[in-house]
Amino acid sequence: MPGNKSSVALTQVTEWENGAAARREDYLAVEEPLEMRAGRFSLGVTLRTPGDDEELVAGFLFSEGIISRREDLVALQTPRANAREKNLVRVKLGPKVRLSANSAAKRFSAGSACGVCGKASIAQLRRRGLRRPQAASPFDAEILCEMPSTLRAKQAVFGRTGGLHAAALFDRRGELLVLREDIGRHNAVDKVIGWALLGGRVPLSDHVLLVSGRGGFEIVQKALAAGIPLLASVSAPSSLAVQLARELGLTLVGFLRGRRFVINAGEECIAASASAPVAIP
Amino acid sequence: MPGNKSSVALTQVTEWENGAAARREDYLAVEEPLEMRAGRFSLGVTLRTPGDDEELVAGFLFSEGIISRREDLVALQTPRANAREKNLVRVKLGPKVRLSANSAAKRFSAGSACGVCGKASIAQLRRRGLRRPQAASPFDAEILCEMPSTLRAKQAVFGRTGGLHAAALFDRRGELLVLREDIGRHNAVDKVIGWALLGGRVPLSDHVLLVSGRGGFEIVQKALAAGIPLLASVSAPSSLAVQLARELGLTLVGFLRGRRFVINAGEECIAASASAPVAIP
Repeated sequence: MPGNKSSVALTQVTEWENGAAARREDYLAVEEPLEMRAGRFSLGVTLRTPGDDEELVAGFLFSEGIISRREDLVALQTPRANAREKNLVRVKLGPKVRLSANSAAKRFSAGSACGVCGKASIAQLRRRGLRRPQAASPFDAEILCEMPSTLRAKQAVFGRTGGLHAAALFDRRGELLVLREDIGRHNAVDKVIGWALLGGRVPLSDHVLLVSGRGGFEIVQKALAAGIPLLASVSAPSSLAVQLARELGLTLVGFLRGRRFVINAGEECIAASASAPVAIP
Repeated sequence: MPGNKSSVALTQVTEWENGAAARREDYLAVEEPLEMRAGRFSLGVTLRTPGDDEELVAGFLFSEGIISRREDLVALQTPRANAREKNLVRVKLGPKVRLSANSAAKRFSAGSACGVCGKASIAQLRRRGLRRPQAASPFDAEILCEMPSTLRAKQAVFGRTGGLHAAALFDRRGELLVLREDIGRHNAVDKVIGWALLGGRVPLSDHVLLVSGRGGFEIVQKALAAGIPLLASVSAPSSLAVQLARELGLTLVGFLRGRRFVINAGEECIAASASAPVAIP
């Protein structure tokens, strides 16, 4: 049985290969909805892989800007074993937290003059108070290159199901602090950020977030909310992710594979070795 | 310049390889928010790759059950060139369409007795009227195996940016009818379904939908809404996707790579060759 008990499910499948079919057992990544509720107000439902649900909710609330500090989370109720509440996390939020419905349109709009656009989304994040994350010195490129293999070695579930995304937090020496997996890319990142928030580790200055999937706008936004200065992915970032990273001063690395990567933002924050900075023509 | 003009953006990056850094140009997949509005009611905002926006909106409304037929879509306004409306699609919906806020919690819940869970989500889809999709006869396994390479050959953008998901519709002879790409997996599928809906091709009986990413619950739901009998993916499905496919009679194929695949649901709908059915011990 690989990984967390509730994160994988065993099922009967038919494998077809070169014209021959055979029945066998296969592991699937578990996907179940989770509802987040504050009093009677539903904060939303996300399809997630069960496990670390409190971290997921704490990370979601924080990275989406619904709460801005640990203290805004007065209480966090673990899902109960009964059928009715096994996919429900109840939170009690501080008196200063304002909840509003239909926030998606607002998040991407800067008001009636401009309409919905990427530039407006970035302006909104500035208004939320997102600032340049802090790093004491440039990150070592060689240490960065080691991180994907460290992540893969620790991925208990991925090897069996092929269906889970991973997010992992490293310190600048390349030590893995926490790894979380989920059927949803965003959820894996929220779980990592929630772990840090609940442990009093935010802002995550001087840390690296590595994700197994793509580095899109929302992942960059979450990293910025947590104060993470370097976001690395094994795949491609989007145009809006790069724009946001450049404007708010996050170092964004893509295609981190083997001894090669692409720096899309923040070149000055990567050093060729521990001592020498990268030469940029 | 690869693919659609607005779907990729050129930018300056730094490539690091084996200790040496060099500046070069790179293509990025474009990501921009799109708002969908019916009168004053915002139907939501999605981060998408620009292009085929009308198809995206039509497919989203239909696959999410907001509209149940082509006729419910009375008017569909293309995004305008001006800055304020370039990321806005306005729709006029028929008089029978009922819009409600906060639908996510409802979609995954079967009422107060049960709470939010996968089983409730499937029950909701049954209530929405989703039924077993129709296929005239089993699909040919050999033809299925050819589809990923057909898809890759047509993916104009993917090769350059590595950042776009693809969804493609095939007929049972393996002919590709439409291919759509997007930074979001769901959006690529919605664009394909919207293309079919606007062209009067729904339900898509006897067709195959191939997706480049994972086959999760929401992708299976969208395929079922469009009446597609076979959903194939090059990656892993989730537990809830398999459960939904089995209960509603969709054939679900995962890990379609080379001359191998895994059938997670609907084994009887795949034939080893055009004539002989698969032997299941």
